[in-house]
Amino acid sequence: MNLKPLHDRVLVKRLEEEEVTKGGIIIPDTAKEKPIKGEVVAAGPGKTGDDGKNIPMTVKTGDKVLFNKYAGTEVKIDDVEHLVMREDDILAIIE
Amino acid sequence: MNLKPLHDRVLVKRLEEEEVTKGGIIIPDTAKEKPIKGEVVAAGPGKTGDDGKNIPMTVKTGDKVLFNKYAGTEVKIDDVEHLVMREDDILAIIE
Amino acid sequence: MNLKPLHDRVLVKRLEEEEVTKGGIIIPDTAKEKPIKGEVVAAGPGKTGDDGKNIPMTVKTGDKVLFNKYAGTEVKIDDVEHLVMREDDILAIIE
Amino acid sequence: MNLKPLHDRVLVKRLEEEEVTKGGIIIPDTAKEKPIKGEVVAAGPGKTGDDGKNIPMTVKTGDKVLFNKYAGTEVKIDDVEHLVMREDDILAIIE
Amino acid sequence: MNLKPLHDRVLVKRLEEEEVTKGGIIIPDTAKEKPIKGEVVAAGPGKTGDDGKNIPMTVKTGDKVLFNKYAGTEVKIDDVEHLVMREDDILAIIE
Amino acid sequence: MNLKPLHDRVLVKRLEEEEVTKGGIIIPDTAKEKPIKGEVVAAGPGKTGDDGKNIPMTVKTGDKVLFNKYAGTEVKIDDVEHLVMREDDILAIIE
Amino acid sequence: MNLKPLHDRVLVKRLEEEEVTKGGIIIPDTAKEKPIKGEVVAAGPGKTGDDGKNIPMTVKTGDKVLFNKYAGTEVKIDDVEHLVMREDDILAIIE
Repeated sequence: MNLKPLHDRVLVKRLEEEEVTKGGIIIPDTAKEKPIKGEVVAAGPGKTGDDGKNIPMTVKTGDKVLFNKYAGTEVKIDDVEHLVMREDDILAIIE
Repeated sequence: MNLKPLHDRVLVKRLEEEEVTKGGIIIPDTAKEKPIKGEVVAAGPGKTGDDGKNIPMTVKTGDKVLFNKYAGTEVKIDDVEHLVMREDDILAIIE
Repeated sequence: MNLKPLHDRVLVKRLEEEEVTKGGIIIPDTAKEKPIKGEVVAAGPGKTGDDGKNIPMTVKTGDKVLFNKYAGTEVKIDDVEHLVMREDDILAIIE
Repeated sequence: MNLKPLHDRVLVKRLEEEEVTKGGIIIPDTAKEKPIKGEVVAAGPGKTGDDGKNIPMTVKTGDKVLFNKYAGTEVKIDDVEHLVMREDDILAIIE
Repeated sequence: MNLKPLHDRVLVKRLEEEEVTKGGIIIPDTAKEKPIKGEVVAAGPGKTGDDGKNIPMTVKTGDKVLFNKYAGTEVKIDDVEHLVMREDDILAIIE
Repeated sequence: MNLKPLHDRVLVKRLEEEEVTKGGIIIPDTAKEKPIKGEVVAAGPGKTGDDGKNIPMTVKTGDKVLFNKYAGTEVKIDDVEHLVMREDDILAIIE
Repeated sequence: MNLKPLHDRVLVKRLEEEEVTKGGIIIPDTAKEKPIKGEVVAAGPGKTGDDGKNIPMTVKTGDKVLFNKYAGTEVKIDDVEHLVMREDDILAIIE
């Protein structure tokens, strides 16, 4: 079963905290909103501009991304936690 | 009797919870807003851009979709619960 | 006496509850905002886009429509309750 | 003495309640915002779009109009109550 | 010493209440926001649209104008009360 | 050391109250927001419109300007108080 | 490991307070929001306009910048504090 995100939405699989710190990024424990690491599982086709033209996506399936903690809507697929969010909620691609 | 949604609105038939979990998606029981599964029964022609051109819809009749719990306006048609919502309230198409 | 709605506004005659349920639509008695059935009596010429071009209306006189309960401004014409609302407050055309 | 409204503003002379009911429109006494009848005394040249082009007005001097009760700014001219409001606050032209 | 207003701003000299009522306009003493009479002393070049083009001003130096009481920022020039406001805060030109 | 403001921002050196009143402008002591006099020390290149084109600035280095009291972010450069603000927070150029 | 900021976002390494004051900029201790000095470590490709065209970035890797204290989301990379923020949160480039 597949989820095909609409417009500029992406489906992201949340990565474990351990995996996050292994990569060298340590989330500071302050009151600030903490970014979370995930992997893009599916990306929408992009928004449609007011002139009817498609605005392509920047992220693609397989990208490791950093996103805001409170971004998106939670969905469990085959018992694994995923999030559907807008591309604009993604802060950066991790290379 | 038919409902023809206006602009970028869609008419969605809510699918039962049981049917939802059968498909492999388990809605997590957290405080987060939970997406709901439905089936598109009718889709509007799409928004009209500021230049008067039509912006076509992405979803079409028959699509199984995931949408936010609080999206749309409830309507009962022949005793079955439906919702009229904007396409942008739909998170993803389920394939 | 006639009312000619401005821009993207429409004049809608409210239809009776009884008539509503006859058509097969039963408004659910939940806390959600309930749509109301009406008939378009007059429609404006449509909005003018930022480039000065007219954006035509979708609904036309005689259309049976479903709209949000709190949409529009009430006017009584010859003792019959009407509403002036923007086309975007109309959810769907009933066929 | 004349007032020349700016942009998309219109100068409207408020018509008396009696005159309103004579025309067949009876303002319902509910909690909803009630529209008021008036006569356009002067209309601005219309808004200027972002591309510098003029967007012409729909109403013109002499039009009888229906507008929201709380629309506009009150001005008395030679002891007669007038209102300066944006064209978009006008609901419909009465013919 | 001169003030050259920026963009779509205008410099307006407030006219005295007496002068206002002489002209035939009597400000009603209701709770509604009351418009004030003034004279345009200097007008900016107009806004720059998103496409880089200038959108010219409607008012010019010497125009008598009516504006909302709470519009603009007060400045005293040589002991005379002036206001710097956006052209859109001006309701009408008095002829 | 230089600060090069970004986009449509300007760096303004606050001028002393005494200098302000010498120029003939007396800030009234009412509850209204009072404009402050300053000198433009550096101006950004201007905003980039949605079509990628530059929208040039109106103010330039050396201009004496009037701006709202609460505009901008304070920075001290070599012990002199400066402000970084958007050009739109500037009310007028003083000539 | 690298972070590639999305759209118009930049990755900024916070510079120490001491380094800030050495450069001649002294942050005033008022209640106003204080700007912070940092160094751009990575910059996104720029926003995509509604017409699908790229709007290039002004800042580039290596730029010393001044930004608002509460801008961005904190990320620690190899134990050094970084921030991911939109270019528009950057006030000025320090030369």
